[in-house]
Amino acid sequence: MSSLFARRASKARRSVLRELLKLTEQPEIISFAGGLPDPDTFPRKILAELAADEILNNYKKSLQYTTTEGKRPLRAALIDWFSQDGLHYEMDQVIITSASQQGLDLVAKTFIDPGDAVFVSLPTYLGAIQAFRALEAQLVGIPLLEDGMDLDHLEGAIARARKEGHRPKLIYVVPDFQNPSGITWSLEKRKGLLEIASREGLLVVEDMPYRKLRFSGEPVPPVAALDEERVIVLFTFSKVLAAGLRLGALAGPKELVEKVVTMKQATDLCTSALIQRIAARFMLEHDLSAHVRKLCEHYRLKRDAMLQALERYMPKAEGISWTRPEGGLFLWVRLPEQVDTERMLKRALEHKVAYVIGTPFFVDGSGKNTLRLCFSEATREEIEEGIRRLGKVVEEELAGLSTGQSL
Amino acid sequence: MSSLFARRASKARRSVLRELLKLTEQPEIISFAGGLPDPDTFPRKILAELAADEILNNYKKSLQYTTTEGKRPLRAALIDWFSQDGLHYEMDQVIITSASQQGLDLVAKTFIDPGDAVFVSLPTYLGAIQAFRALEAQLVGIPLLEDGMDLDHLEGAIARARKEGHRPKLIYVVPDFQNPSGITWSLEKRKGLLEIASREGLLVVEDMPYRKLRFSGEPVPPVAALDEERVIVLFTFSKVLAAGLRLGALAGPKELVEKVVTMKQATDLCTSALIQRIAARFMLEHDLSAHVRKLCEHYRLKRDAMLQALERYMPKAEGISWTRPEGGLFLWVRLPEQVDTERMLKRALEHKVAYVIGTPFFVDGSGKNTLRLCFSEATREEIEEGIRRLGKVVEEELAGLSTGQSL
Repeated sequence: MSSLFARRASKARRSVLRELLKLTEQPEIISFAGGLPDPDTFPRKILAELAADEILNNYKKSLQYTTTEGKRPLRAALIDWFSQDGLHYEMDQVIITSASQQGLDLVAKTFIDPGDAVFVSLPTYLGAIQAFRALEAQLVGIPLLEDGMDLDHLEGAIARARKEGHRPKLIYVVPDFQNPSGITWSLEKRKGLLEIASREGLLVVEDMPYRKLRFSGEPVPPVAALDEERVIVLFTFSKVLAAGLRLGALAGPKELVEKVVTMKQATDLCTSALIQRIAARFMLEHDLSAHVRKLCEHYRLKRDAMLQALERYMPKAEGISWTRPEGGLFLWVRLPEQVDTERMLKRALEHKVAYVIGTPFFVDGSGKNTLRLCFSEATREEIEEGIRRLGKVVEEELAGLSTGQSL
Repeated sequence: MSSLFARRASKARRSVLRELLKLTEQPEIISFAGGLPDPDTFPRKILAELAADEILNNYKKSLQYTTTEGKRPLRAALIDWFSQDGLHYEMDQVIITSASQQGLDLVAKTFIDPGDAVFVSLPTYLGAIQAFRALEAQLVGIPLLEDGMDLDHLEGAIARARKEGHRPKLIYVVPDFQNPSGITWSLEKRKGLLEIASREGLLVVEDMPYRKLRFSGEPVPPVAALDEERVIVLFTFSKVLAAGLRLGALAGPKELVEKVVTMKQATDLCTSALIQRIAARFMLEHDLSAHVRKLCEHYRLKRDAMLQALERYMPKAEGISWTRPEGGLFLWVRLPEQVDTERMLKRALEHKVAYVIGTPFFVDGSGKNTLRLCFSEATREEIEEGIRRLGKVVEEELAGLSTGQSL
């Protein structure tokens, strides 16, 4: 029966990461691999009350089908929420999605014909790679510098893609505290990106799951705030309220959003009315911004613990560096060229510490000497101890390399 | 920017039905148009308790990300549930979906390349038409007889599709109390379908949203129970628990289900853990079968009221007939050839009664003289009065036609 698979499905492979993640879930291992928000930050008392009240007293709406666009009170609350960042949307520019992974799927469905070029950074968010590949996009990787994409490289890559018959369609970016790198784009880079997109007639897809999780430094305006006509924004409640809700939003130019709604109708009819009502009431009756401020304080301490531990325990060798993110859940470690972090993972697991290898985040297969660390799940004590172990692992690996042991 | 749309999106149109449904939502109109389950049947007290308990006491799991396949306790409960119908699945053959519309989308993504032929009945479920069209399937309509598809016609259509360069991939059926017709397939037709699918090397997709809502007559085995290796089953909790949960399942041969999981990962990562846990606990701690028996009693009375009212109020003219479904939420009315139910809808709204026009359910554009009536939402009194009004509408329409008024 597998001869009946569509071409896109035949080519699709399960994420290697899933298999590797299973290895990291053994007891006693301190894992920085996961990337999940800390469940103790989920406002469970309020959510439990709202859920019970919605089910008991508003069941005719909350337990019934709803519109594909989503509940108006939630969309109205999100319009207010976006306006804090200088984004000004009308009701018909904002729709509800089943978290931002669905936003990515809908963008791919709406814009990508097989072979169309999508430009992403090296590294980029794995879920985006999967969503675009599932619709047979040609993914083109652009180096990510400290302050955003290498825009000169982007211009050349667009021209090359066109020449090779891949129609350039969109540029996908996570400009704030990117997963996996933790990097935030400068204002100059954001403007430069829009100039290129405008000149080349491309759409920018701005994914902002972590934007509100800023612990230090000054916010930079969203790309969309600089040119709302050229940008589709993806938002999710996963990191600021609770991941298990599977709730997010997509916003952008009206004519594009309208088409996305048509595609969503065919995809799942609508997102759960109950979940939408819970989130809407949280936003209307409670203070999501205050909740996010608490989250920032919580995660800032963890990030600081990880940065201090890295400073203390990582070998002082050439070629070792890491990012110092001003928010989000992740930081990114680069090791000397000759290190293979996938091979090193075995040693790490022996030392009872785990990370995520870098290569799956690179569409060109590079990044073998990189790894991602997530600081949201472990306690500060675990972070200290886990990074101590990781330092030891790297030290051993480098020693092994210089004596040829690991080769 | 709309020049960037993918071909599938350029071709996609919003459902006409949505626009027509808006017209039917005016006050004082008795509407048989909707097709929603009766919200008073949703077990709200139990669901509220379970939701609050899960959020408060199991938040580390229920508010967090979960696996793409879905929660094991829910899948185990569904394996038991399916076994009541002679369907025997292992854990890795059953995955959780965001209701059966997502099941349809995932089937389309997994199996349909542009131009591949999908065989559906005339009429068929609108959501399936949208899901398959969104992935650019070539939909081929096969007449639906009283006891299932016209299988001779199906064989010819498969041969023709092949000849025209459309690769036959799958046959989509709703064999129990189909939406929109209310028709149930006979055992012979189910066996005949499998013979053809087997001979032609095609997959059967069996959608069973209404199967458990049987009010009278004897259950016929699911198509999948006759040949599990050739059938993917779609199930939803929308009609038996609550539509607002957006929860369902997909089951079938292991190698196919594995691939569907890969496609789902790219589509939404996972379905809400909270919603899954609520449904799992309902199935494990309460009695879903007993709940469904109550639903059947509830809907049976409404169906009977509608059938009695049709008998009483519909004109006794040649060419007028309707189905007598043994379950589900819908029945189907056929009027004389010269009646156009879309044109007649204006008259119906003047008489304060509404239905759904037939044509959107026909992939070949036929069915102009048909309409769907939903008996789940209105009270029995409203059903009596609404059908009385509809009888009057049809009477006037026929009189108008014979004098040429409406032409």
